Amino acid sequence: MSPVDAPSAPEPAADLAEMRRILARLPGPDLEAGSAAEARQRELIKPAGSLGRLEELAVWLATWQGRASPKLEHPHIAVFAGTHGVATRGVSAYPPEVTQQMVGAFVNGLAAINQLAAQADADLRVYELALEIPTADFTQGPAMGEEDCATAMAYGMMAMEEGPDVVALGEMGIGNTTAAAALACGLFGGAPDDWVGRGTGVDEAGLARKRQAVAQALAANAGALGDPLSTLAALGGRELAAIAGAVVACRMGRIPVVLDGYACTAAAAVLHKADPRALDHCVVAHRSVEPGHARLLEALGKRPLLDLDMRLGEASGAALALPILKAAAAIHTGMATFAEAGVSGKG
Amino acid sequence: MSPVDAPSAPEPAADLAEMRRILARLPGPDLEAGSAAEARQRELIKPAGSLGRLEELAVWLATWQGRASPKLEHPHIAVFAGTHGVATRGVSAYPPEVTQQMVGAFVNGLAAINQLAAQADADLRVYELALEIPTADFTQGPAMGEEDCATAMAYGMMAMEEGPDVVALGEMGIGNTTAAAALACGLFGGAPDDWVGRGTGVDEAGLARKRQAVAQALAANAGALGDPLSTLAALGGRELAAIAGAVVACRMGRIPVVLDGYACTAAAAVLHKADPRALDHCVVAHRSVEPGHARLLEALGKRPLLDLDMRLGEASGAALALPILKAAAAIHTGMATFAEAGVSGKG
Repeated sequence: MSPVDAPSAPEPAADLAEMRRILARLPGPDLEAGSAAEARQRELIKPAGSLGRLEELAVWLATWQGRASPKLEHPHIAVFAGTHGVATRGVSAYPPEVTQQMVGAFVNGLAAINQLAAQADADLRVYELALEIPTADFTQGPAMGEEDCATAMAYGMMAMEEGPDVVALGEMGIGNTTAAAALACGLFGGAPDDWVGRGTGVDEAGLARKRQAVAQALAANAGALGDPLSTLAALGGRELAAIAGAVVACRMGRIPVVLDGYACTAAAAVLHKADPRALDHCVVAHRSVEPGHARLLEALGKRPLLDLDMRLGEASGAALALPILKAAAAIHTGMATFAEAGVSGKG
Repeated sequence: MSPVDAPSAPEPAADLAEMRRILARLPGPDLEAGSAAEARQRELIKPAGSLGRLEELAVWLATWQGRASPKLEHPHIAVFAGTHGVATRGVSAYPPEVTQQMVGAFVNGLAAINQLAAQADADLRVYELALEIPTADFTQGPAMGEEDCATAMAYGMMAMEEGPDVVALGEMGIGNTTAAAALACGLFGGAPDDWVGRGTGVDEAGLARKRQAVAQALAANAGALGDPLSTLAALGGRELAAIAGAVVACRMGRIPVVLDGYACTAAAAVLHKADPRALDHCVVAHRSVEPGHARLLEALGKRPLLDLDMRLGEASGAALALPILKAAAAIHTGMATFAEAGVSGKG
């Protein structure tokens, strides 16, 4: 349960063309497992449908774990951290060095996510992506070269081990709600202002700087916007690319995923843009206060599990949703059927 | 953690006049503890307000536990069960004997609430209120005499022991969404149809019978509607009266309360009608699918924590909200301050 600070990103051989090939052959759902889980739900001693989304979650877990009886005993939480060139443009209420300082707090058990991981009885891993080398300032050109982006994606993929029943993903990166806004706008269109919010809590002047940075980023990277992974390289950040890679690796490993708030969802949205089925093994934990998140959830067709006015990041919302998934699995496997319990059915 | 089936209700000396006197002198909040908790929240290593309702919940727990540092280590779940005369009128999709059968399932660990209690590491207690003697059919006159109602309230009060950090309340009683609808309509007005839903899942004919039963109940008990506790006696049920008593006892014992869905909230609403501050130590766990619940929450000015399309009762929503309260308390006490962690503040 103590957080592990993984080494900085290695340099695997990877390019975005290879990532595109992987995205084109993602495994599908295990419909047999899902149907078996649905059948059991109908026999449990409760009016059919009366547990609402808990029933849906049990069936979803079965479908994407590939077993009729879903398990949620070993959740992992993975937090990816990256530094952003745009952070020097006054787009955050906090200075850029807070990214490294918060990683230190995660490793020392001092942050919100540590308490949430302990409450959820989840393993917490913190992954630093070359924090000492910020991405380029994307108001002037691409944040990352395609190879740098592919390397970060590959790192996120390799970070996903075998073993967990579910993985909750999140991020830390001062400036990354600006990157999320640019990414979402680059992927789904609309005006930059539709996607920009106050993030950590910037004032009016900071909000104006964020809006301007996003508008400039889109103009400076217009050539990249036709392709989702090129958009990620141009407008994302290493932690966001790593999250996209982690989502892909979980799909390949039959591990359902819980996405956190705006930045995390924007990273995953890159995959949705490449293939609308690519996030079927993901739930979104909560609706962030950050206004672009609601818009993004609509674009993805995702209904979040929680709506508690949160906007912290660092996987906090995803961790808070884990007990709901655990409850769904425990109910599914632990409850008796009408026949077993001798309870009368519908009159 | 194994559920305890408490003995049937004893016969304490109690009358509604005494209950009214207790309601007139409920203890208030500990504002000093609340302010101290608020001050700490501002120092923790996160943007102020970024944990949204988790921050509010930590302060609320401090305020009503009467300690600056809230604890949530020993949650209790109390499920009160009662039988309803109106259940013979075809207002439920299930026969009346299911109340006793489900109590058996609770005691044997077979129901949804057992799995949820285990997940939340909470003690589960099940209280039967004279299940062998249903209340009178309230379409013909009062469900309970005032003494019977006061006895059930007193039983609910006595069921609350010292020790828990929070109590989650819920109910089991075939027919009690009809009672909840009658009670809510009697307390807050409007048309019976505004408050009646499908409960366990009645068909159109069953829904029509529920609406008619509520309209008849209000007409047959018009004389009781001027006073909240008389309304509870006339239109409630023993498990609902016990819940009202439990809410009062928790207030007196500085134990915050988590209310479950429609029937549980309607029982507590009796106290709100007597004194609008009477439920300040309560949160509502979730918004039930039962349409009257949203209306009732509006009347009470309560925003639920969860909205997961649930409508089971048996404290299932309240139990599912416990990990959120635990998380709020753990974050409050376990996180470091900016000074402790050496993290830079707002730039």
